[in-house]
Amino acid sequence: MISFEEAHKKVMEKLLSFEEENVFFTNSLGRILAEDILADRDFPPFHRATKDGIAINYGAGENTKKQFKIQGIIAAGTPKVKLNNTNDCLEIMTGAVLPENADTVVMYEDITIENGSAIVNSEIKKGQNIHRQGTDVEQGAVVIKKNTKITAAEIGILASVGKVEVKVKKLPKIALISTGNELVAVHETPKPHQIRNSNMLSLHALLEEENILATHVHLNDDKEEIKNGLNELLRTNNVLMLSGGVSKGKFDFIPEAFEELGVEKIFHRVAQRPGKPFWFGIHKETNTVVFSFPGNPVSTFANYYVYFKDWLYESLRIENKKENIVLGEDFFNPTKLTLFVRVKIESKNGITYAFPIKENGSGDLMSLAHTDGFIALSPNKELYKKEEVAPFIATR
Amino acid sequence: MISFEEAHKKVMEKLLSFEEENVFFTNSLGRILAEDILADRDFPPFHRATKDGIAINYGAGENTKKQFKIQGIIAAGTPKVKLNNTNDCLEIMTGAVLPENADTVVMYEDITIENGSAIVNSEIKKGQNIHRQGTDVEQGAVVIKKNTKITAAEIGILASVGKVEVKVKKLPKIALISTGNELVAVHETPKPHQIRNSNMLSLHALLEEENILATHVHLNDDKEEIKNGLNELLRTNNVLMLSGGVSKGKFDFIPEAFEELGVEKIFHRVAQRPGKPFWFGIHKETNTVVFSFPGNPVSTFANYYVYFKDWLYESLRIENKKENIVLGEDFFNPTKLTLFVRVKIESKNGITYAFPIKENGSGDLMSLAHTDGFIALSPNKELYKKEEVAPFIATR
Repeated sequence: MISFEEAHKKVMEKLLSFEEENVFFTNSLGRILAEDILADRDFPPFHRATKDGIAINYGAGENTKKQFKIQGIIAAGTPKVKLNNTNDCLEIMTGAVLPENADTVVMYEDITIENGSAIVNSEIKKGQNIHRQGTDVEQGAVVIKKNTKITAAEIGILASVGKVEVKVKKLPKIALISTGNELVAVHETPKPHQIRNSNMLSLHALLEEENILATHVHLNDDKEEIKNGLNELLRTNNVLMLSGGVSKGKFDFIPEAFEELGVEKIFHRVAQRPGKPFWFGIHKETNTVVFSFPGNPVSTFANYYVYFKDWLYESLRIENKKENIVLGEDFFNPTKLTLFVRVKIESKNGITYAFPIKENGSGDLMSLAHTDGFIALSPNKELYKKEEVAPFIATR
Repeated sequence: MISFEEAHKKVMEKLLSFEEENVFFTNSLGRILAEDILADRDFPPFHRATKDGIAINYGAGENTKKQFKIQGIIAAGTPKVKLNNTNDCLEIMTGAVLPENADTVVMYEDITIENGSAIVNSEIKKGQNIHRQGTDVEQGAVVIKKNTKITAAEIGILASVGKVEVKVKKLPKIALISTGNELVAVHETPKPHQIRNSNMLSLHALLEEENILATHVHLNDDKEEIKNGLNELLRTNNVLMLSGGVSKGKFDFIPEAFEELGVEKIFHRVAQRPGKPFWFGIHKETNTVVFSFPGNPVSTFANYYVYFKDWLYESLRIENKKENIVLGEDFFNPTKLTLFVRVKIESKNGITYAFPIKENGSGDLMSLAHTDGFIALSPNKELYKKEEVAPFIATR
């Protein structure tokens, strides 16, 4: 049995590189950019009025001059015009191009209009109320870096630079495989000795949150069925994710089937709780990576986060920050295992604290409804005092 | 001009109540539960072995007895069997039903099997390695509360209680309306005086993150076109969201059109930056709520978060926690406005700090690529010292 740190390191040594694909930019939300995005022009692309009012030439005429004859009006979307007489002004709308010969905008709130002239009622500063061309970014500059996860902010930027097709990382093809004759489908009424299949549904939803639409296959506890099924799936997926069938039971054929199919076992069993009987391997022929999680629902859920999600983010080259959290109570780890403890979080004065929740072991799926995440308690430290910090894995 | 607090309060006075609809549970990720979810049976539904090993009767025979004849083997998914002779044992697999007359499970790691008998090599405790029926939750108990946002954890729970159809809150029907003749479509090459329409795309993506698929209509700066368009949209949507057309410009027909259409103006202009010329109203006839944001991209983006998102979450009755963040530097607010300042966040020793980013005003869309959120600085406080806290609105 290896330590959690060793197991995590071994998983991270098996990263995949994903190819790239072009998607329409409105379909790129949540995807990972595979190219730098450049400004196709200066931003703003012209000296742009930031207020509705009048455009004037600050230096023209006397400094004390406060009255400007109105030459006309410029709406946003109008090509650039010229202030013919620098002693005059042009009415200008927010977003419009500053006219030639003008250098300053005075907003309506600061003027009075009488008999075709604008009278300025307040102090003005040369150059005010103008968003100058190229001051946000210049043409050709990188506006979004490669390997950024695309949020609504990036969608707006992609739109403004006209990036209709955007190159993103492909996502891995993943098959979820359930085993175990005790499982029945969700729409069925289980017999007293049966339970419904929930792990596959949780995993499917977890992957959906990463924009991955996994397929799902159930294999019965029959060695031939398992072996044939796995053989096919290894050749058509980048990742197999299993739940159950990897403990020491007489009917757990999976490790044996993998061995016969040429899947190299990297490790089996990790000094952690929950999630100890985790089996990890790689198919040498196809490079398909196999995450075979234990059958208990909290074990599968925790291992998805601490192994698979890290592996996925590192494989996609996304920054995957490790955060600590402040403990709201004392926590204990009297074991020789890394403990992943379910916690609720609460914020106070800008600091977020972790508190234990009532739970009933790794089979207690219902406890996840009250769980905001896991804290990781090291086997080398028995007492974590209140106000100390511990690594935190958010799950909500 | 009203304060941000007043404006926010007025928006929250116009909450809507959304109807309910049934969706297939695998389509409910991210939706808001409109019913309590109950356990359809005890969890676990039977005394369940949590280890592979042997099931024994702890009390039978001598206390010193350490050897048990193996009566047979029980796989997970097998109906409940009986330990015929309480001095014997049954091999049992994880997930299987504890047999009648047995009360304790000893795992394989702690036994040796020889000549059809299991010899126990370690201390055992009565009742060990059994996840007892009903100890997670009892039949009929609430396992997920109404008004919960459904995550992958809830999907697993819905699966395990057989809740195939789940009642969720309907989401509002929203039309996004852009105006402004300076805007061209994303796939077009703008002339020097034009810009691409980005606000609608950001808003569309923001709503997509809430599972809302908004429609988008562009209205030209023509009063009749705007009035007819708005009239139709008011009657077919719960919310209209606009960007631009509400400042003091000569071509900003929108407030006038709304007035003529019977949309009551609740307020226009708020003492805040960015986002000052925000216009908020309600159509008395249809109860359609109108969020008319200023045209600058950062103004629209900030106002979406500080007004609309709060309004949406409160309307859906989701807990919408307000968090503070610790400031990583001194911040200043020399104005009489509430400032929403773009920040980057960094965590250290379990505490997250906000730092200012370089930005160029409310027109600087590109700055949002570096923004993790906004901090809100009150007009009543000029200096926020490093290590003080301020309200934080995360945008990433």
